[in-house]
Amino acid sequence: MSFPKVGVIGAGQLARMMVPAAVDLGIELSLMANSSSDSAAQVAPYVVIDLNDEAAVLAWAKKCDVVTFEHEQVPAKAIAAMEKAGVKVFPSSSSFIYSQNKLLMRQKMSELKLPNPEWSSYDGGTSPLKFPLIAKTPTGGYDGRGVFVIADQSALEKLHSEASQTLLLEEKLNFDYEIAVMVARSTHGQAATWAPTLTVQTNGICTQTITPIPDVNEDLAIQAENIALAIAQGIDLVGVMAVELFVVNGELIVNELALRPHNSGHWSIEGSVTSQFEQHLRAVLDLPLGNTSLVAKWAVMGNVIGIQTDKSKDLYPPYLHLMARSPKLKIHQYMKEMRPGRKVGHVTMIGDDLVQLRSEVAHAVDYMTGAIDE
Amino acid sequence: MSFPKVGVIGAGQLARMMVPAAVDLGIELSLMANSSSDSAAQVAPYVVIDLNDEAAVLAWAKKCDVVTFEHEQVPAKAIAAMEKAGVKVFPSSSSFIYSQNKLLMRQKMSELKLPNPEWSSYDGGTSPLKFPLIAKTPTGGYDGRGVFVIADQSALEKLHSEASQTLLLEEKLNFDYEIAVMVARSTHGQAATWAPTLTVQTNGICTQTITPIPDVNEDLAIQAENIALAIAQGIDLVGVMAVELFVVNGELIVNELALRPHNSGHWSIEGSVTSQFEQHLRAVLDLPLGNTSLVAKWAVMGNVIGIQTDKSKDLYPPYLHLMARSPKLKIHQYMKEMRPGRKVGHVTMIGDDLVQLRSEVAHAVDYMTGAIDE
Repeated sequence: MSFPKVGVIGAGQLARMMVPAAVDLGIELSLMANSSSDSAAQVAPYVVIDLNDEAAVLAWAKKCDVVTFEHEQVPAKAIAAMEKAGVKVFPSSSSFIYSQNKLLMRQKMSELKLPNPEWSSYDGGTSPLKFPLIAKTPTGGYDGRGVFVIADQSALEKLHSEASQTLLLEEKLNFDYEIAVMVARSTHGQAATWAPTLTVQTNGICTQTITPIPDVNEDLAIQAENIALAIAQGIDLVGVMAVELFVVNGELIVNELALRPHNSGHWSIEGSVTSQFEQHLRAVLDLPLGNTSLVAKWAVMGNVIGIQTDKSKDLYPPYLHLMARSPKLKIHQYMKEMRPGRKVGHVTMIGDDLVQLRSEVAHAVDYMTGAIDE
Repeated sequence: MSFPKVGVIGAGQLARMMVPAAVDLGIELSLMANSSSDSAAQVAPYVVIDLNDEAAVLAWAKKCDVVTFEHEQVPAKAIAAMEKAGVKVFPSSSSFIYSQNKLLMRQKMSELKLPNPEWSSYDGGTSPLKFPLIAKTPTGGYDGRGVFVIADQSALEKLHSEASQTLLLEEKLNFDYEIAVMVARSTHGQAATWAPTLTVQTNGICTQTITPIPDVNEDLAIQAENIALAIAQGIDLVGVMAVELFVVNGELIVNELALRPHNSGHWSIEGSVTSQFEQHLRAVLDLPLGNTSLVAKWAVMGNVIGIQTDKSKDLYPPYLHLMARSPKLKIHQYMKEMRPGRKVGHVTMIGDDLVQLRSEVAHAVDYMTGAIDE
C-alpha cells in the first residue's frame, strides 16, 4: 500500500500531538529528536540526529515521502540542502524564512499590503521610531524571547551592541487584545481557516485561548481570516500556520507568524471537525483539507505551565481530582519535566457556557501545576 | 512521575485505537502481539508472546501496572495465573468468563432477571426448544462465528456430534432490529453508559451504526441503558463492555456481551466527549469516568469490510476522492491487508442531517472497498 511516511523535524509536544492523527489515517511518522526523552519520541519512531549534521539529516530525509517541522530552530542551509537533493520539504525554505526571520516577515507584510505596525530595521544611529518602542532580534526568538521594550536611545544602542546584529524596531502598540488565526494550505493551493481565537495573555505568555472570540465584531473576524489567507497565499504556505494579530482600536495589526501547528490551535483537537494536526498532515501530503467548523459553541484551552522548580512534581495524581470534578475536561499531557515557565500540557473543554468553561479550565490548570490544592 | 503502564493482550485495531487516548493522557501501553505486522504493533510498543506460554505472559504482565484485553481469545488459565500472581487484570477472570462462554452468560442473565430469549443447554436427546432454533458453541465464537440456524432434530444432533461439546440453544427470534449499549465501569463501581446505538446489519454483519437510535421510544433507550448498567454491576465489570440487544415487538432481549471496546462504540471517538477507548483506560486504571454525552445530534459509523481477494488493494489513493467529497468524514485505517469479510477500517461522520450522514458514510465505505469507483 502507498501510505506515506512523514518526517518531522522536532519531537516536542507538537510532534506528539500529530501522532493520534497519523495513527487514525495510517500515516507513518519518523521524528528527528534531540533525545529519547523528547515528548514525541516517547510515542513514535524517531532518530536522534544533530540538525547541523547535513549529511545525516539528508540521509534521513531521503527515506521520508515528505519532511515537515514542529519548530523554527532549523538551519536554513539544512532545509536548502534537502530541497536541492529533491526531498519534498513543507513548508518550503522560501516560506519558512518568514517564520524564522521577523525582519523579512515585516518586509513581506508590507509588500502584501497587510497591516504592519510602524517598523524599521536598525543598524545603529538615531532611532527612526519614537520611544518607547519594541526591539526584536530578527532570528531565534519565540514565545516572547528576543523581544525587548526599549525606553530610550541609549538602551537601544546598548541592545544593538550586545545583539551584534540588525534589529527589527516596531512601534509599541497600545493594543486592546491579541488574537490568532490558524490557517492551512496545501500544495495545490487549497486553503482553510479556523474561527479566530482570543489568546488570553498573562505576563506576555498565552495562558488560555477562547474560540470563537467572545463578542467579536463579525467583520473583524472575517478580516482576520482574510489576512491569514492572504499571507498563506502570499508566502506560498504548505502546512498550517498561526497568524498572531493585535487588535488596536478595532483595527488588526499582524504581530507574528508561526509556520507550524501552534498553541493557538490546540482547541481544534476537540473543538473542530478537523484538528490542526490532522490538517497539517493533510496539507503537507497534498490531501484535500478537512472541514474546520466548530463542533460546539465554545472551545476553551488552558496551558499547563510550570510554576515551581521541583522537577519531581508528579502530574498523574491530579487526574483523580480533576476527572471527578470536570468529567468533560480533556487532558493533554506532554510528558515533560515541570520547570518554571515551561509548558508541560494543556487542557480543553468544549460546550455552551463560556463562564463555566473558563472557570473549569482555569481551575484544572491551577490544580495541575500545584498553584492550588483543592 | 507515576504515570502507569497498561498491558493490552492483543494488538488489533481495538488496541490501535487506544493509542491516541493513551498518548493524550501520558499513559504508556505495552501490547501483547501475534506479530510485528499487527494493526497496533505498528504504532505502539509491543512484545510477541504466545498466549499459551504462561511463564512468558506472567513475566510480561508483572511489568505492567494493569493488564487488559482487546479480544476474547485468552485462555482462562492464563488470566487466572496472572491474578494468582497478584497482577491487576481487568476485566477480571470472573467477569471475563461471560464474554467467553455464552452458556454461562445466559445463566447469569437469568440469575440477574434480565431478559433472555427462551434458552437451554443441550447435551443430546430431544430438543427442549421448538424448531427452527439457534444453536451456539458456548466458547470461541464471535462476529457470528459458532452460531447456527437449526431446522430440525437431525440437524441438531449432527451439529452436537461435530462440535463435541455442550451447545447453547436459543429460540429463533423474529426481531425488529438490533441495538447495542456501551457501558463502562471502574474498580470503584462508577458506571456510565453512552446513548444506545442502532447496529445496521447486512448478512449478519454490522455494516453501519447510528447513534442515538432514530425514532426510538425514549423508555426503550432508558431500559436498554439500565440493562447494561445492571449487567455491568451484576458481573462486576471493570472496563468497557458492549451489550448487544434484540428489539422484539418493542421488548428488549439480551443477545451478546463483549467485555472490551467494541465496534458499536467506535462512533464515540468523534461523537462523544469521551471515547470508549479513553473510557476503557480510565476504568481499568480506576480513574473517574469521562462524560459520555454526544457532541452532535447524530453520529454515523460505517465499517470498511473487504470485498475482494486482491491483497494488493491500496487503501490510500481513495483518500484523495473521499476527503475532497466529504470534508467532514473521519477515516480510521487499521493498516490491515484487505480480505473478503475482514474489517480493515471504519469511517465516522457527525452532524445534524441523518440522511446525508448515512449517505456519505455508505459512499465512503463503498468507495474505499472498491465496490464503486466514483
